[in-house]
Amino acid sequence: MSHDHAGRLVRAARETDAAGLAALLVAPGPDLLYLAGYDPPPLERLTALVVRPGADPVLLVPELERPRAQASPAGSLVALDRWRDGEDAYAAVARLVPTGRLGVSDRLWASHLLGLQTALGGSEFVPGSRVLSRLRARKDPGEIQLLSRAARAADEAFSRVCRESFAGRTESEIARLLGDHLVRAGHDSVAFTIVATGPDGASPHHEPGGRTIRTGHAVVMDFGGRVGGYCSDVTRTVSVGYPGGEVRDVHDIVTLAQEAAFRAVAPGVPAEEVDRAARQVIEEAGYGEAFFHRTGHGIGLEEHEDPYLVQGNAELLEPGMCFSIEPGIYLPGQFGVRVEDIVAVTDGGAVRLNHAPRELAVVA
Amino acid sequence: MSHDHAGRLVRAARETDAAGLAALLVAPGPDLLYLAGYDPPPLERLTALVVRPGADPVLLVPELERPRAQASPAGSLVALDRWRDGEDAYAAVARLVPTGRLGVSDRLWASHLLGLQTALGGSEFVPGSRVLSRLRARKDPGEIQLLSRAARAADEAFSRVCRESFAGRTESEIARLLGDHLVRAGHDSVAFTIVATGPDGASPHHEPGGRTIRTGHAVVMDFGGRVGGYCSDVTRTVSVGYPGGEVRDVHDIVTLAQEAAFRAVAPGVPAEEVDRAARQVIEEAGYGEAFFHRTGHGIGLEEHEDPYLVQGNAELLEPGMCFSIEPGIYLPGQFGVRVEDIVAVTDGGAVRLNHAPRELAVVA
Repeated sequence: MSHDHAGRLVRAARETDAAGLAALLVAPGPDLLYLAGYDPPPLERLTALVVRPGADPVLLVPELERPRAQASPAGSLVALDRWRDGEDAYAAVARLVPTGRLGVSDRLWASHLLGLQTALGGSEFVPGSRVLSRLRARKDPGEIQLLSRAARAADEAFSRVCRESFAGRTESEIARLLGDHLVRAGHDSVAFTIVATGPDGASPHHEPGGRTIRTGHAVVMDFGGRVGGYCSDVTRTVSVGYPGGEVRDVHDIVTLAQEAAFRAVAPGVPAEEVDRAARQVIEEAGYGEAFFHRTGHGIGLEEHEDPYLVQGNAELLEPGMCFSIEPGIYLPGQFGVRVEDIVAVTDGGAVRLNHAPRELAVVA
Repeated sequence: MSHDHAGRLVRAARETDAAGLAALLVAPGPDLLYLAGYDPPPLERLTALVVRPGADPVLLVPELERPRAQASPAGSLVALDRWRDGEDAYAAVARLVPTGRLGVSDRLWASHLLGLQTALGGSEFVPGSRVLSRLRARKDPGEIQLLSRAARAADEAFSRVCRESFAGRTESEIARLLGDHLVRAGHDSVAFTIVATGPDGASPHHEPGGRTIRTGHAVVMDFGGRVGGYCSDVTRTVSVGYPGGEVRDVHDIVTLAQEAAFRAVAPGVPAEEVDRAARQVIEEAGYGEAFFHRTGHGIGLEEHEDPYLVQGNAELLEPGMCFSIEPGIYLPGQFGVRVEDIVAVTDGGAVRLNHAPRELAVVA
């Protein structure tokens, strides 16, 4: 799939100007991949795409990575400038940008930002997401297609893992199987595989370990990978054997909260309203204290990106935005339940990109 | 292998004090893994270990990651503090640290540093490597053992890949085989596999692609992975079939430069002297312009870390330091040659951790 990097660069320069910034310094990672199709590893040698209103963009690279940059889509899009080992990369940036307010990629390393702050003494630095989120959060049809393919592949991995035997295996074993299924179902790579059984389910970001899965456990599985650079991220909670009453009740509440948040999505709705919709269902059921994280996060080239569905975020939803809706209830020492789909905002409301059944599945 | 995290935390507080810093803010990544054995993914939710002279360390985590942090080695080493989605994580840090000069992990995200700079207005921020490199660069025997195991596994992967057929295969195919061999030879994971054939060898950080390897090509292979968290990184250049005269000559020069740099290593020698030793051999052979990168980089929990063997780095080598020695000669449009070993500084000089033959190997 080819992306419109040239158009994105033009829009980035326009947004940089509109935000009152003199330039935007784009670091390796999702910002650089999004704008110029170049994806070197972030390292101690500075690579930075300089986006300036009224001037052509320049990609500054370490000399030894010049051929690699030249061979990437960026090579035919932007001029390359380079610095050599032993030279001052920050001084090289200072020669390219005017003094003023400068945006820097959120993921730029602090050591690089400190180097830039020293070399560009009179400048003020602000998070580049103020500019780039406006572009990146609204996905174009090609991006939504990739997110959709990733979501479907994650659904298929869930369907396949449910046919495995859970009881008697460890979390780590199921996590490994889940990773294999993600790849076989069409992912280019695996990003994460949370498998949290019984009491471990009360830890939302549990690291799968040696705990053995037992009949009667609820098992939270939260997993994802990448397809064409774009992320999947889905959560389902399954029951090993027939579920007990509280697991069924809690799962019902979480599923209703997930549905309520989904229905709250529409263009023009503040992001925090979606959080509130899910939270209200869980609070009214008496589990408010047990839902202690935000309802969701944007997704795209990053697993987590703008917009965040969290109290305090009054940002208005717009068509093309894609994010997770993932309420959960966590009961320490007992179990946890979370249900998560990726959704896309359309003119008419939201559409789900995940279609795995949301009912409590029973596994062996 | 268990590491002395408690001792490292004590030494980090001492070095923080000695460097005149009020506190050190340690971010997810190698610094946090080194000091506290905790390795969450770096994300938009702030996690920070606060190291303060004269006070106990505190690990600030997002509420939903508290169980995960508690279950890690950090859980029994340091007090945990937490912030919840919707709260201001930077204000939470500000409550834990005094105003003053503060060190921050080099890999902390710029967005987090900008948040901290706003919340801690009167403070000055400096790279945390000023403190942590002093600890991390001098490896203890357990760390050298892990680096050594990783290096031996990489040597074994090289030996195995040399028994593959190269001619007629693409760089990507050999890169995939190399990755498989790295894992089968004992790596926990693969970090990178550069395979650059013929003219692609003139690009030191070449991204392996669809170019077909031909008889007569020189092929640069630079690859590594992790064993127990510690990195391997080795480069060998092989010839597909009997090598031509210039490839042999250039390979001889690079091997001699590598040996000269190796012999230059001793406690008390400035890092840049090792660079100079390699460069002198290559310059005297008339290829000075074709060796346009530094001679090496430290290695440990990161592929690249202090000390860097580069002109301008007068830092004195000390026993326990481990780094690469990797001179190269790159002839655009023709071929490239690089030879790289990891070495450890001892009281008596340097020892090599890699033992793969450095002679130009001929493959099929």
